[in-house]
Amino acid sequence: MQYDNLMKKCIELAKQGQGQVSPNPLVGCVVLDADGQEISTGFHEKYGSNHAERSALLDIEAPGGTLVVNLEPCCHHGKTPPCTDLIIEKKIARVVVGMPDRKNGGAHKLREAGIEVIEGVLEQECRQLNEIFIKNQSGKTFIAIKTATTIDGKIATANGSSKWITGKAAREHGRKIRARYDAILTSSATVLADDPQMLHKTKIILDRNSKLTGQEQIFKQGEVHVFKEFEPEKLFEMGIMSVLVEAGGRLSGEILPFADRIYHFMAPKITGDNSAKSCFDFRKITDINESLNFKIESVEHFGSDLLLTYTL
Amino acid sequence: MQYDNLMKKCIELAKQGQGQVSPNPLVGCVVLDADGQEISTGFHEKYGSNHAERSALLDIEAPGGTLVVNLEPCCHHGKTPPCTDLIIEKKIARVVVGMPDRKNGGAHKLREAGIEVIEGVLEQECRQLNEIFIKNQSGKTFIAIKTATTIDGKIATANGSSKWITGKAAREHGRKIRARYDAILTSSATVLADDPQMLHKTKIILDRNSKLTGQEQIFKQGEVHVFKEFEPEKLFEMGIMSVLVEAGGRLSGEILPFADRIYHFMAPKITGDNSAKSCFDFRKITDINESLNFKIESVEHFGSDLLLTYTL
Repeated sequence: MQYDNLMKKCIELAKQGQGQVSPNPLVGCVVLDADGQEISTGFHEKYGSNHAERSALLDIEAPGGTLVVNLEPCCHHGKTPPCTDLIIEKKIARVVVGMPDRKNGGAHKLREAGIEVIEGVLEQECRQLNEIFIKNQSGKTFIAIKTATTIDGKIATANGSSKWITGKAAREHGRKIRARYDAILTSSATVLADDPQMLHKTKIILDRNSKLTGQEQIFKQGEVHVFKEFEPEKLFEMGIMSVLVEAGGRLSGEILPFADRIYHFMAPKITGDNSAKSCFDFRKITDINESLNFKIESVEHFGSDLLLTYTL
Repeated sequence: MQYDNLMKKCIELAKQGQGQVSPNPLVGCVVLDADGQEISTGFHEKYGSNHAERSALLDIEAPGGTLVVNLEPCCHHGKTPPCTDLIIEKKIARVVVGMPDRKNGGAHKLREAGIEVIEGVLEQECRQLNEIFIKNQSGKTFIAIKTATTIDGKIATANGSSKWITGKAAREHGRKIRARYDAILTSSATVLADDPQMLHKTKIILDRNSKLTGQEQIFKQGEVHVFKEFEPEKLFEMGIMSVLVEAGGRLSGEILPFADRIYHFMAPKITGDNSAKSCFDFRKITDINESLNFKIESVEHFGSDLLLTYTL
């Protein structure tokens, strides 16, 4: 309990690196002096730059102080020297850690140097913050799906009218979510139906039957890869650590069994038309218990709409 | 602000009469003595019994005291004598009212008797509590729809498999909601598909093509009326002040334009099958802007499911 608020601050600091640090984890850090007064903060800003601990410690002296950080400090040489060395050099007396970094021995090294290490503070929240990094440790790309539906689960009328289901606030937040992911993935069907720009540094389009000409709006910006098949392993090999699927019911449905997270924007409106297009439409079932099960992680309001977030 | 918590208490007291007081309003009352100490409470328990104010005042003396009540006290003779007379007789100095009763002159009568009247405390919450009573004042039955869907808006597979979409906690709360309404309304299609009991004192079945035999489970309990058409005026003439629709997509959809409130239980599961049955399915639209618009009133968790409540 004692370090919960400081750990929350670390998480908030860490989030400032969202979309910039891949394949590194999101890390924030707070340093207290020997009297328990906060004297410095830091976060990992982008891939290749200083780790959060280094950023917080570089210009200060804090003998006998406490360092709070959401992820176990590194003890290996990467793009930057090990954080544990700097923590020891700065004579920090106590390190408070949110979650372990399983490929690491940082906590062990700190304890060997006589530093008190407290682990597991708000571990669940810290794990959620770094869900992409954790998934990547098993050699897999983190896969999220974003959809925007009516109350009756529709994303468009039967003839494709879909502008706009959700309001401005929801759509703006949707763009913020997009920016957290290494790449976005859509289908040629979506590109041909809506000819969207989908601004992003990396875009993947699934175009099974080579229907695209390359003249569509989506090709005019960023790096675009056209795939014939959805192969999640290939994404990881390409260095794409996280992908956000923004597509119709067919592709979103096909990827559903691989999804780690679903962002479901829901507008409080009803089409009342079962022939309108569903958010996930990729199979026929005969028993309701064949439904795929998720957990509700959070419910947020954006304007008059909701964002429901589901995880496995 | 001073009386907000006492008004909240009145609302909670009033709710204890839910399902019992129709066609009367839900009313709760708190009495403070001249020193501001709470000395009595009351609520309208059932139709024909004492009003909340009478119930709170009968056995006490509170000269110079304050009476807090969510609805303007009555000044007319009904099943019971006017509450204003008793308030004056008990020498109450101040009456705090949540919302006005527009068919009434209670506040005026109290002021004439030299009593201070404060009106409009938590008025919105008080109006929501008595939404049925308010609708009835315009000569119309309050109409609510309850549905239980997957994330993709489905209530059953194409061949009718629907047990169960939501979990126990949600279904139990669904029965509590049902008890608040004068009657429930369903369709012969639902009766024939699921043969449900639907325990309730008053049930209405829409059976356009006389498909029911009267031997179905639903006929074994309560008072059952079979209609050929949905006629909302007829409900009011029958003395049904509020009705809860529990039916499939066809009837729920047909009634949607008349609905004052929708209870949407949503389980975090996905059928992924557009041919599965939608919660509202009664028309074809070609422009997404033909969707019917609602407002999200509240979001509650029941077990792993959500209850989303929409109003106009």
